Amino acid sequence: MQTYRVEHDFLGEKQIPNDKYYGVQTLRAKENFNITGTPISKEPLFIKAFAYVKKAAALANKECGVLDPKIADAIVYASDRLIAGEFLDQFVSDMIQGGAGTSCNMNVNEVIANIGLEYMGYKKGEYQYLHPNNHVNCSQSTNDAYPTAFRMAVFMKIDEFTAALEKLQEAFYNKGKEFDNVLKMGRTQLQDAVPMTMGQEFNAFATTIGEDVLRMKEVQKLITEVNMGATAIGTGVNAPEGYADACIKHLAEVSGIPVGLSPDLIEATYDTGAYVQLSGTLKRCAVKLSKVCNDLRLLSSGPRCGFNEINLPPMQPGSSIMPGKVNPVIPEAMNQTCFYVIGADLTVTMAAEAGQLQLNVMEPVIGFALFTSLEYLSNACDMLREKCVVGITANVERTKEMVMHSIGIVTQLNPILGYEIAASIAREALQTGKSVHEIVVQERKLITQEKWDEIYSFENLIHPKFINR
Amino acid sequence: MQTYRVEHDFLGEKQIPNDKYYGVQTLRAKENFNITGTPISKEPLFIKAFAYVKKAAALANKECGVLDPKIADAIVYASDRLIAGEFLDQFVSDMIQGGAGTSCNMNVNEVIANIGLEYMGYKKGEYQYLHPNNHVNCSQSTNDAYPTAFRMAVFMKIDEFTAALEKLQEAFYNKGKEFDNVLKMGRTQLQDAVPMTMGQEFNAFATTIGEDVLRMKEVQKLITEVNMGATAIGTGVNAPEGYADACIKHLAEVSGIPVGLSPDLIEATYDTGAYVQLSGTLKRCAVKLSKVCNDLRLLSSGPRCGFNEINLPPMQPGSSIMPGKVNPVIPEAMNQTCFYVIGADLTVTMAAEAGQLQLNVMEPVIGFALFTSLEYLSNACDMLREKCVVGITANVERTKEMVMHSIGIVTQLNPILGYEIAASIAREALQTGKSVHEIVVQERKLITQEKWDEIYSFENLIHPKFINR
Amino acid sequence: MQTYRVEHDFLGEKQIPNDKYYGVQTLRAKENFNITGTPISKEPLFIKAFAYVKKAAALANKECGVLDPKIADAIVYASDRLIAGEFLDQFVSDMIQGGAGTSCNMNVNEVIANIGLEYMGYKKGEYQYLHPNNHVNCSQSTNDAYPTAFRMAVFMKIDEFTAALEKLQEAFYNKGKEFDNVLKMGRTQLQDAVPMTMGQEFNAFATTIGEDVLRMKEVQKLITEVNMGATAIGTGVNAPEGYADACIKHLAEVSGIPVGLSPDLIEATYDTGAYVQLSGTLKRCAVKLSKVCNDLRLLSSGPRCGFNEINLPPMQPGSSIMPGKVNPVIPEAMNQTCFYVIGADLTVTMAAEAGQLQLNVMEPVIGFALFTSLEYLSNACDMLREKCVVGITANVERTKEMVMHSIGIVTQLNPILGYEIAASIAREALQTGKSVHEIVVQERKLITQEKWDEIYSFENLIHPKFINR
Amino acid sequence: MQTYRVEHDFLGEKQIPNDKYYGVQTLRAKENFNITGTPISKEPLFIKAFAYVKKAAALANKECGVLDPKIADAIVYASDRLIAGEFLDQFVSDMIQGGAGTSCNMNVNEVIANIGLEYMGYKKGEYQYLHPNNHVNCSQSTNDAYPTAFRMAVFMKIDEFTAALEKLQEAFYNKGKEFDNVLKMGRTQLQDAVPMTMGQEFNAFATTIGEDVLRMKEVQKLITEVNMGATAIGTGVNAPEGYADACIKHLAEVSGIPVGLSPDLIEATYDTGAYVQLSGTLKRCAVKLSKVCNDLRLLSSGPRCGFNEINLPPMQPGSSIMPGKVNPVIPEAMNQTCFYVIGADLTVTMAAEAGQLQLNVMEPVIGFALFTSLEYLSNACDMLREKCVVGITANVERTKEMVMHSIGIVTQLNPILGYEIAASIAREALQTGKSVHEIVVQERKLITQEKWDEIYSFENLIHPKFINR
Repeated sequence: MQTYRVEHDFLGEKQIPNDKYYGVQTLRAKENFNITGTPISKEPLFIKAFAYVKKAAALANKECGVLDPKIADAIVYASDRLIAGEFLDQFVSDMIQGGAGTSCNMNVNEVIANIGLEYMGYKKGEYQYLHPNNHVNCSQSTNDAYPTAFRMAVFMKIDEFTAALEKLQEAFYNKGKEFDNVLKMGRTQLQDAVPMTMGQEFNAFATTIGEDVLRMKEVQKLITEVNMGATAIGTGVNAPEGYADACIKHLAEVSGIPVGLSPDLIEATYDTGAYVQLSGTLKRCAVKLSKVCNDLRLLSSGPRCGFNEINLPPMQPGSSIMPGKVNPVIPEAMNQTCFYVIGADLTVTMAAEAGQLQLNVMEPVIGFALFTSLEYLSNACDMLREKCVVGITANVERTKEMVMHSIGIVTQLNPILGYEIAASIAREALQTGKSVHEIVVQERKLITQEKWDEIYSFENLIHPKFINR
Repeated sequence: MQTYRVEHDFLGEKQIPNDKYYGVQTLRAKENFNITGTPISKEPLFIKAFAYVKKAAALANKECGVLDPKIADAIVYASDRLIAGEFLDQFVSDMIQGGAGTSCNMNVNEVIANIGLEYMGYKKGEYQYLHPNNHVNCSQSTNDAYPTAFRMAVFMKIDEFTAALEKLQEAFYNKGKEFDNVLKMGRTQLQDAVPMTMGQEFNAFATTIGEDVLRMKEVQKLITEVNMGATAIGTGVNAPEGYADACIKHLAEVSGIPVGLSPDLIEATYDTGAYVQLSGTLKRCAVKLSKVCNDLRLLSSGPRCGFNEINLPPMQPGSSIMPGKVNPVIPEAMNQTCFYVIGADLTVTMAAEAGQLQLNVMEPVIGFALFTSLEYLSNACDMLREKCVVGITANVERTKEMVMHSIGIVTQLNPILGYEIAASIAREALQTGKSVHEIVVQERKLITQEKWDEIYSFENLIHPKFINR
Repeated sequence: MQTYRVEHDFLGEKQIPNDKYYGVQTLRAKENFNITGTPISKEPLFIKAFAYVKKAAALANKECGVLDPKIADAIVYASDRLIAGEFLDQFVSDMIQGGAGTSCNMNVNEVIANIGLEYMGYKKGEYQYLHPNNHVNCSQSTNDAYPTAFRMAVFMKIDEFTAALEKLQEAFYNKGKEFDNVLKMGRTQLQDAVPMTMGQEFNAFATTIGEDVLRMKEVQKLITEVNMGATAIGTGVNAPEGYADACIKHLAEVSGIPVGLSPDLIEATYDTGAYVQLSGTLKRCAVKLSKVCNDLRLLSSGPRCGFNEINLPPMQPGSSIMPGKVNPVIPEAMNQTCFYVIGADLTVTMAAEAGQLQLNVMEPVIGFALFTSLEYLSNACDMLREKCVVGITANVERTKEMVMHSIGIVTQLNPILGYEIAASIAREALQTGKSVHEIVVQERKLITQEKWDEIYSFENLIHPKFINR
Repeated sequence: MQTYRVEHDFLGEKQIPNDKYYGVQTLRAKENFNITGTPISKEPLFIKAFAYVKKAAALANKECGVLDPKIADAIVYASDRLIAGEFLDQFVSDMIQGGAGTSCNMNVNEVIANIGLEYMGYKKGEYQYLHPNNHVNCSQSTNDAYPTAFRMAVFMKIDEFTAALEKLQEAFYNKGKEFDNVLKMGRTQLQDAVPMTMGQEFNAFATTIGEDVLRMKEVQKLITEVNMGATAIGTGVNAPEGYADACIKHLAEVSGIPVGLSPDLIEATYDTGAYVQLSGTLKRCAVKLSKVCNDLRLLSSGPRCGFNEINLPPMQPGSSIMPGKVNPVIPEAMNQTCFYVIGADLTVTMAAEAGQLQLNVMEPVIGFALFTSLEYLSNACDMLREKCVVGITANVERTKEMVMHSIGIVTQLNPILGYEIAASIAREALQTGKSVHEIVVQERKLITQEKWDEIYSFENLIHPKFINR
């Protein structure tokens, strides 16, 4: 039979099921916010990061002499269990919540207090011995503990995402090497342009993703600036001297994340610039990954009425009605993930702009947006690599044939014949269906077959040298 | 012990756990897409709507003589069990998926086939008797079945959301009546303007939400246009004559939703205009609800260093460090929900723009965005009403005092004294701290006390009559 | 030599060049706001609409007995000259301005006052005889005059845009008729699907644009609700009884625009819902026009390494380096215009959400966004029609050949052979390069040549009938 | 009388007015694109940057021996005149244009050719002596010349914007020093929090802008990577050996901008990542500047019914109806500018995502968006500084009085009394209207007057020290 304990806060009393480690404030939040149905426990790294914060704060408080060592040790013990991934089901606050994260912070404070109380030999709820606010939250406010934990969680998620990006980059790079000798037509504005290799094309995909890796690492550094010791609004009210530095030192040690203290704690307590930058950089990644997938879908269009330059590995029957149809489902799923991320960036933008005075109260939805964007995009990068990129094959004969049959190769004759004569050849080819070779060498005899062979050798098509009269 | 059956499609064979009602194509999708971690079963109305579609199609196919009545009956039976909410855990495709919904459609086809097979006395997987494609999907394509089911699910969700909006509207309307006699200062550009009543202010909140209800109902109508019978691209290939009309008729009957057939099935099969319109209208609701919540937060700012005109019901302690602080957590959560919805609208926009040729392959992420937006915003409207609006109280004395102490009331003297003299009074009041009454009646003696009393009576402040010299 | 008159307001005196019809407040605004460099005169319909408002207000004020008929007549005279398009260069406020449009309103008030003064035989600046605030702005506030004028200007611009859309719709419709007998392959997910006609494809473009015309007309109606008589915040302070209705009546008469009075003037004075709805609908148009242009660019890709189904009229040499290259420059310009409009919708969204309490002070940037979006999109529709759509030609032979060579036509055999056998045929075709006909009729002899001819007749490909065993 | 010359390209002949320096391709573009009405000449730095490119290319071509020195010198001469700002009216292409900038590039090529022709003693149009394509565009394509010029123009505009930001930062910093001793209440979630100084608040504005300066400088570096020598698609077709490096060297010299060559020219020719990053960073600036202006408007709300902590300098009468009303028009204009920039970022996002294969054809609208965003935001920063920030004054007595009258100061008693007792004091104060001092010292006698004076000294309120029992 479910038994209950009674807890109170300054709004009154509530009954808490005895097996729960959270307390009255968490319960209020649970009742108040039922919007997404997604509890904060869905982001275990966030809980882990919060435990780092509470552990570091307890150690700093002990050092500063404002927390009884026995109490501090109990907090450390409880934090370590959270860091180990335990008690995850006790974190029940909805991802979208009012109060600027106070419900998250109190959820953590209460769970740690009750784990600590049991460790000390007391019962849950006997907060006179270990109090969620007075002890676990000692020298802290939601307004420093919450954004610090959030940033550390984001830091760890960026690690995951960047790793996924790097593996994807490598997969494209390998394909680039594999397709090194595949001659194909380059296209600009969807119109035939000049020849290139498929190796260059896939290598460029690797390059473009590699640049995003660099940008992610830059923005990851911005995220390491935290505001522990700021307490309520950055003035450090109720934090003892030396606490901020001690806390940061412990935080870096226990987490392995190179956090640093913000030089202007007033600004740091309300500023969301780093989130906007991160979100904008994620948007950049999404824009570019979407472009890459658009290209993969174009290049594999067909099989008979499209470009048909490459084949994506078939992953599932493509149609419930059209037999044998295989669709580019993996790039399509990436495109959609990118649209999600771009939308989430707008959510972050609106939320950041809505900050007022000494705090941005909209941080929870920023967290929701960034956590899901990082998660979905990491998943989609892994999917794209494993289920698509590594299995792509080239239709070598077809792509070569398209080059030689194209009109665009007339461009190579510019330095010899000039733009205007070259244009008249292009015009004739277009109107008559003839090949450039036919017009230039056979009919108009503008260059010799030898010159033609020099210009249109495989080597020169792939790495064009400047050849003029 | 888990046993397996073997199923195959044209990509090969897969083992399916014997207790699963889904089949090989669902399994492939499950393995292919792991992006959001949110399966389509999270939106039960979508499964229900899909079952309506399959039931109506089976009935129409039976009527058209292209489906054996026994098979059709089995499909109807299976659909009815889905409509009743059973087998929800069999719908395992990720919300973000490639393939334009083929995985959703095949998931439904397979589950219905296997329920139907057991109903007919066969085993799961004996598709020779009831085939997911040949029978359940008969005369259909993902490209008509999926968007039709999606639209019907959205229709039902709009009903829920509109109901939540209407209840919120009524709550504001009731507050408007309650605050009918509360005199307060109106503000434009955050500067004191002219007097009004708090009743007018809250009634205007009701009005503004009421207009959104009307817009939602308009867009709900657009959503009822469906394309059953279009099959693959709108030409109706493989659908027997008369099928489309019969299907629509049954669909309206079994669902109670007033669906109608699109007059241009080619266009209807790729067009996402209705989703963009719906999403834009949801964005409109979000913009306005966010504005209302911004106002509630402004009006309740304080308690001692802000506007302090109203009190929101305290829902939870507001701070882990500042004792007694109570924050406007409920409007804050609504603001954040609105930012989510505005972001999701961008996702819809990008996805709609990315449609190519005869189909928009990005519909799954449109679905994900619209389902979550409708769900979260409904939840947030209920929250705002129950946990905030109904409990708001007015600080009657304070708001009245602010009016009489304001400079803005000089506006009422324009018709008598002219704009320029009124401006000089305002200027003097601002510079000296004097009240308008002091300057006008006592010092400059520009109007008599009687005239003053007429102009500044409670009645005239609330419902100003034009009074001139 | 430039001479000056001195004008003052409650902030002090300023020198105004004697030839200017605007006064001190306009000059201050001109000095304050130099952001876009685009004055409000760039939108002549806005000035015209403002003149309608001032004329109607003067007539209503005369009727209500609060304005000397001689003064009212002078205002009417001056307004009529503005309506005729004169004095446009006197409207110098920047499009982005603070003050919720007060600078626009005062610019109009001052210009009308000075034109009226000269008409009455006085000099510019002798405001004792005709005052910008006391007389021209009589019974008005910026907060009703400005949004009313803005809405009327938008109404007229929607007329222009809708006309451009309708002409574009017709151009596509005509092409649809022209291409009625052009057989081509339909594509879903960029993969070959089933046959259709190019007529169906272009007719669907007409359909999709036609739906936008309907949506624009719906939203145009929302825009006709105005708030004249609301004055500062909707309480109607300083407006005489009967004024609001009289003003609306005159406004509809002088402008020919069916304006109506908002039933809740408090709400109407701050609400921007109609702008958000309009902007969202423009975004919808942009999304769909962009999709259409994406399709046109895809279908015309090539000429030799792409789809090459249609030819867009060549408008300019496509490359400074590649001779003979012709690019789809017109659809490209439309795409970019659409991206502008989608961005501008976000500007409107942010500005609408930022409204506070009794007024939305961000209306000027909403105006800037909506005016430019409507203007650019109208221009782009005309461009797309004149310089692209009307000149599109079809590559009839090529599109037909692609159909018969495709694998997708195997879909037609589903009802006869079942999905699984059809899939195996598709698979063989893909792997061997054979045609479906070869496999089905010649090798596997699954159907006779007669049956083949029935199924794959031109008529049945275009308007497929259900054919089974 | 206007005389004409005849020019031709491969689409045919056109008459060009004899006084125009542009030629047939520019004329076609002028006729094709009439969307924004804003010609590229509105961005003189873009023309200047283009001239740098053409000059550097001519010098490199001369060095590589592919351009006759006489011709190269004529190009250099003509480029220098453009660099000097001459001939601006010859740049008539619309900002939004199809063709990926070909019209811009040809406009520049043609104007330079004709200036050069006259310099060489020929007539305009005698392109056999100096040809727009063969000579001015020698070794180039639009696809390298255009983005390089664009990036250099953006570089120069970032310089301007960053300078404006830095001046704004300094203005806030100075105000921070001025308000160093102004005690005021900090607010979180619009609720009274704990004391701080107005100096801290304004200094934090400086900090937050200073961080944006750093971000802008980071992104400015990304913009310096250019792709000269890539020609059509990055393979360098038609460019002589050594050209790319020579061109970059000259480009850096003539412009003073530290451009560098991209290591992957294939990727560089289509990639728009740097623009997305720049636009995202501008969005970040906009988000933060908007937040700052929201705060300024909140803090100056009133004068009698708001926060009334600061006074913004009055810039213009605030109302056409409410005498003496002064509005925060300058921050309002900044807010709106920020909304424009945020919208423009979406335009950039959409355009970047729409890139296909070897080129992003949407660069012109990216240019339009970035040029206007940088321009408007620079202007708005100057406006905010000059017309608002430098003139802000503080209401010192009022802000101090609010602090001492607040309940929030009870927070300081947490370390002494514990969170729960402090909360009960807060509760009593809220319910009774009493001051914290009254309850703590006089009634409950929880601390002595001496302790109170220590805790609530001006010094300790501003720079709180940890004080416990």
